[in-house]
Amino acid sequence: MNTSTIRLRVRYGETDQMGRAHHAHYLLWCEEGRTAWMRERGASYADLESEGIYLPVSRVSVDYREPARYEEEIDVVTRVSGVRSRSVSFAYRVLRASDGTALADATTELVCMDGRGKVRRLPGGLRSALSKAVSESWDEADVGPRGEG
Amino acid sequence: MNTSTIRLRVRYGETDQMGRAHHAHYLLWCEEGRTAWMRERGASYADLESEGIYLPVSRVSVDYREPARYEEEIDVVTRVSGVRSRSVSFAYRVLRASDGTALADATTELVCMDGRGKVRRLPGGLRSALSKAVSESWDEADVGPRGEG
Amino acid sequence: MNTSTIRLRVRYGETDQMGRAHHAHYLLWCEEGRTAWMRERGASYADLESEGIYLPVSRVSVDYREPARYEEEIDVVTRVSGVRSRSVSFAYRVLRASDGTALADATTELVCMDGRGKVRRLPGGLRSALSKAVSESWDEADVGPRGEG
Amino acid sequence: MNTSTIRLRVRYGETDQMGRAHHAHYLLWCEEGRTAWMRERGASYADLESEGIYLPVSRVSVDYREPARYEEEIDVVTRVSGVRSRSVSFAYRVLRASDGTALADATTELVCMDGRGKVRRLPGGLRSALSKAVSESWDEADVGPRGEG
Repeated sequence: MNTSTIRLRVRYGETDQMGRAHHAHYLLWCEEGRTAWMRERGASYADLESEGIYLPVSRVSVDYREPARYEEEIDVVTRVSGVRSRSVSFAYRVLRASDGTALADATTELVCMDGRGKVRRLPGGLRSALSKAVSESWDEADVGPRGEG
Repeated sequence: MNTSTIRLRVRYGETDQMGRAHHAHYLLWCEEGRTAWMRERGASYADLESEGIYLPVSRVSVDYREPARYEEEIDVVTRVSGVRSRSVSFAYRVLRASDGTALADATTELVCMDGRGKVRRLPGGLRSALSKAVSESWDEADVGPRGEG
Repeated sequence: MNTSTIRLRVRYGETDQMGRAHHAHYLLWCEEGRTAWMRERGASYADLESEGIYLPVSRVSVDYREPARYEEEIDVVTRVSGVRSRSVSFAYRVLRASDGTALADATTELVCMDGRGKVRRLPGGLRSALSKAVSESWDEADVGPRGEG
Repeated sequence: MNTSTIRLRVRYGETDQMGRAHHAHYLLWCEEGRTAWMRERGASYADLESEGIYLPVSRVSVDYREPARYEEEIDVVTRVSGVRSRSVSFAYRVLRASDGTALADATTELVCMDGRGKVRRLPGGLRSALSKAVSESWDEADVGPRGEG
């Protein structure tokens, strides 16, 4: 399995006066999905930072399709979409847990830096783990409709 | 002048443990820039909502170039980059106020909805005002280096 | 059992440059704990709002004892600490899940309002449910050290 | 003058589905007020941190009186309310700029720490500057009604 899935519940403080989750919070949900993806593969980002490896976000894009509402449970599915010597890209699908409706698609690119903010190569072991997991597109088994069982 | 510029100061609570403004906050800065752009042209978004016109964000992208630091002043320059019958696109440049360094470029697409979440046409007056202000690209006078005077 | 407990993981975007969860986020964690407390007792706050009952926060206090770190799991234990005709108070303890260390204690007071922002009495059923669950203090079974099993 | 005042505009992303600024954001506004108070007295908190002096928040309380709305301008007035050898307390009043209505009162206590998180004495110069500015209560000239001129 090349994806990781986390389940969250939309917080009241994440809504805005339009009655939906504010669009900026999706970036934190994706970040939590990415953190889980890495932790589940033995590459905790907290550990990386303690070794002086940083992965700041250099690019994001999000397509919002349907609103997420307060107290709804949502799933964030994460996969690696590309790896280069000094950067890695993740893709995310945000789904309403109750029925599998796709709420948003997102991508982020992260660049590898040392503790002084200088771009550097991804550590060999991390790059190898990421490369093995690259998926060009979503697998329907991961992001398809829920609740059919 | 087709752009609006607001000046903000990076809040401590906007930083993350990498010692820079967390990437999600740029979306709120752009939102404040867009709000100012509209207010300065007599189309307050707060007023639009009170008339039942909503402009939820349907798409965002951000390229992060240089980090923004706590207590730094930043400028957010906003322009309209495109108008269609049911949506409008804005582009933003985030600059460090002290020296004009470009910190990030962003775009957002907003779709026009009524109070029940149904897509509708932009009101004629608003569409006309937006259309007159469309700029395909940045004007150096708006986003060029500061502090040369 | 008069308390509810939820488990969260500290998000990267919740840290600040001091390397700890920024103090404002505890209010969202407490809010999520309160939401769970109500939902588990059949009084979903989302449902209350759809019936025109609002419970805005009128007062908060937080004592921060130990920092919460990125990627740590934390438990938020919630109890009702007081009920009056037009308001209700909740108390919260935030614990590090791995060892039960108390990270923070918090209280919030919520006032009951109608859809126009006018203070009103708590609905009878809700007030009754809240009143039955009032606890003056923490039960050690709920907030004591973890991991002894 | 022992107070500092900053002016902010409520961001859309700071509202919640109750149509008001969510209560957690007041802590960031107070933080920005405190940052300004220190900067205006030559004790930039960013500089303090670069010297290895940290002032994490150990306690907060907020009383919310009236809601703050999207796009409204608000003033945050900050004063020092107490100084001890290892901690300092600030008090804040949040006002609607248009008419001076008090929206909230808040207090925070900050404890002085070194870079390893160990409590230490406030640096002598900082403690002296803070002590000279202590005010037990609000001066009406600072927080009284606006717009009467």
